[in-house]
Amino acid sequence: MGKILIKNCTIIPISGSVIESGVIAINNDRIHYLGPESGLPTDWKADTTINAEDMVALPGFVNSHTHAAMTLLRSYADDLPLKPWLEEKIWPQEAKLTREDIYWGTKLALLEMIRSGTTTFADMYFQMDKVAEAVVESGLRASLSQGLIGVQDANEERLNTGISLVKDWHGAGEGRITTMLGPHAPYTCTPEYLTKVADKAAKLGVGLHIHLAETKDEIENIKAQYGYTPIALADKLGLFSLPVLAAHCVHLTTDEVNIIAEKKVGVAHCPESNLKLASGIAPVADMISAGIPVAIGTDGASSNNNLDMLEEMHIAALLAKGTTGDPTVIDAHQALTMATLNGAKALGLDKEIGSLEVGKKADIILINKKQPHWMPLHDVEANIVYAAKGSDIDTVIVNGQVIMSGGEVRTLDVNEIFNYVVKRAREM
Amino acid sequence: MGKILIKNCTIIPISGSVIESGVIAINNDRIHYLGPESGLPTDWKADTTINAEDMVALPGFVNSHTHAAMTLLRSYADDLPLKPWLEEKIWPQEAKLTREDIYWGTKLALLEMIRSGTTTFADMYFQMDKVAEAVVESGLRASLSQGLIGVQDANEERLNTGISLVKDWHGAGEGRITTMLGPHAPYTCTPEYLTKVADKAAKLGVGLHIHLAETKDEIENIKAQYGYTPIALADKLGLFSLPVLAAHCVHLTTDEVNIIAEKKVGVAHCPESNLKLASGIAPVADMISAGIPVAIGTDGASSNNNLDMLEEMHIAALLAKGTTGDPTVIDAHQALTMATLNGAKALGLDKEIGSLEVGKKADIILINKKQPHWMPLHDVEANIVYAAKGSDIDTVIVNGQVIMSGGEVRTLDVNEIFNYVVKRAREM
Repeated sequence: MGKILIKNCTIIPISGSVIESGVIAINNDRIHYLGPESGLPTDWKADTTINAEDMVALPGFVNSHTHAAMTLLRSYADDLPLKPWLEEKIWPQEAKLTREDIYWGTKLALLEMIRSGTTTFADMYFQMDKVAEAVVESGLRASLSQGLIGVQDANEERLNTGISLVKDWHGAGEGRITTMLGPHAPYTCTPEYLTKVADKAAKLGVGLHIHLAETKDEIENIKAQYGYTPIALADKLGLFSLPVLAAHCVHLTTDEVNIIAEKKVGVAHCPESNLKLASGIAPVADMISAGIPVAIGTDGASSNNNLDMLEEMHIAALLAKGTTGDPTVIDAHQALTMATLNGAKALGLDKEIGSLEVGKKADIILINKKQPHWMPLHDVEANIVYAAKGSDIDTVIVNGQVIMSGGEVRTLDVNEIFNYVVKRAREM
Repeated sequence: MGKILIKNCTIIPISGSVIESGVIAINNDRIHYLGPESGLPTDWKADTTINAEDMVALPGFVNSHTHAAMTLLRSYADDLPLKPWLEEKIWPQEAKLTREDIYWGTKLALLEMIRSGTTTFADMYFQMDKVAEAVVESGLRASLSQGLIGVQDANEERLNTGISLVKDWHGAGEGRITTMLGPHAPYTCTPEYLTKVADKAAKLGVGLHIHLAETKDEIENIKAQYGYTPIALADKLGLFSLPVLAAHCVHLTTDEVNIIAEKKVGVAHCPESNLKLASGIAPVADMISAGIPVAIGTDGASSNNNLDMLEEMHIAALLAKGTTGDPTVIDAHQALTMATLNGAKALGLDKEIGSLEVGKKADIILINKKQPHWMPLHDVEANIVYAAKGSDIDTVIVNGQVIMSGGEVRTLDVNEIFNYVVKRAREM
């Protein structure tokens, strides 16, 4: 860390107007100044200067729902109905994943996320201490939760593992790691277990990361079993008195949209995973109308099959227009806000990240605009949302540390990761 | 041209099974051999050898519907309702485009298309002789048609311009250019004009490129005016006795799907443009069930806002699953077929291109699979469709000529193009 000056770039702060050409000054882990170069105090001297004249500076993307280590199962099973996909393909392989596999699979995910401009992600999986180790090394920021299944024998042991993650890792990596408890879903946790987990979370002072209302089957089964839809059940059980990050929210009634808005539930919209598994299309326009700051997530690489937030944001915007018949729904600025500041809100981190503001953490990406598909440049926000690719990301800064420069990730050994996953995949 | 040997790569011929490691031998403009290296005749010697061990070879993408020069209007107007978008933004600027603008705007499009793996495209615009010039220089293959508006005074003159394009340019660029007549749409051409254009096309021995059934408004207006939906009207007027490339086909009845199948109309599915303009979502799964070899197009950069066929194919596959509720619809192989061989069929070029087969033209792309988002490699076709990016394209060969290598386009001067379009955009 130290003092970094990013010069001559277009700046999209998200929370304010686009600055056509300006500078960003970073003091250790925080943004010290941003604006025209003339406004920078003359006594402030940088240790490192980045000349970013072909670049656009933006807050890093917040991927609000992932299962990082599932990169190991990327393209392992596709174009299948949900049941055989899970039961015959994904679950049997997941059961064989070792702690080392989780570590290296996560590292592969981190590499892909850094390369495509993600600076923070919310991850739910198992062996999460290995995930935390990888995150600390990578320099990324993450909100981690152990996935808790509460319908089998080992549910108590699992909860303890989830609690240990919070106790051992919350605040690690210079504060880059935060934690939640991760009750998997209403169809994998009993109401009693959900309540128990929520109580523990309240005592620990953390939130919950959960899958809610992903498929029609889930809605029907939960309703048949408990007499409530998943959102209404979670509300009735008191889960929403805590900060909740709810992944998917595909099938919602108007009442449920209102519950989500009123209780300030964070929504991780995962359009590609929902399309690919044929779960459906979330009513994002309705949620936005109700004032919900919808965030965006990629879900795991086995149902996406990539972790590229630019692509996810692009599809989210297009899909909302195409399904509502209204081309003004989710404009470019709103799409960018969903992928950054709304992500930070959903993770409870918007006081620290999600926009470029003086005093916030320096989580910044630089996008190279000198590319054929960026020309000409009539509207920088529209170019990012509708024309840019993940490969346009040149530089990634997290917590004031440059973790990628010129497309080269500095914190991870690419060959070491490739060697492990290629070898491991051969055994599958 | 000459003899090129591509070695050690995974080959996806589209028309046959994936070859895990093989070679492709090119003799001048055609594929001489593909398969295991041991099967290559020992007396065949290459002038140039490409070691492609981290690559996947695939037929180049066929972008079946574009307005290339509209790159000049990329992100010029977004997130607007169709009418003000067209009337207040796009048309006024289009009216000011000079012949030079068309030439350079097209070159920018060609650069973007080559970079993302397109080897053939079907373009409809105006000043098409300037487009043809740019295509010949670039080394790409294209099916070109002058857009014909047939409700105003100059319709006769326009038709003559369209006919001149056929006479002057069909077969140019060592046969890389083919032509069609391009009656714009039933809402911009009277039935009399459509018939006249079709008669001319029949005499010239070329097909028609037309927009059909793009929006609900179009359907309602054409029905009110003529008593038939656009597809039924085109059929009644005899257009489908010619080879027809129909862009969009978003709103179709079952009868219309059957007409399209029976008359072998080529369909250019443009999912991103249809979503972005909120036109709707084409019933691709129904068309495929009816045996229609649906092709994929990006449409112009002003309504997309990019010309990346990998992205377009990806969205086409996801959208079909998500809207039908069936994750098995459009599997990875089918998506690849849509973006290659079906495109060739829609352009009437499938005897020459669209798959890798001995005797076909050597239109081949090499995709670099040594990337984080490609790891591990359980299924090469799924990785291309669901995980790859346009920037993964390393090498592009058209008609046996290497027009891009290592991501560098050899046939176009990037800076010259950038300088022109940046300067031109400032005046808009």
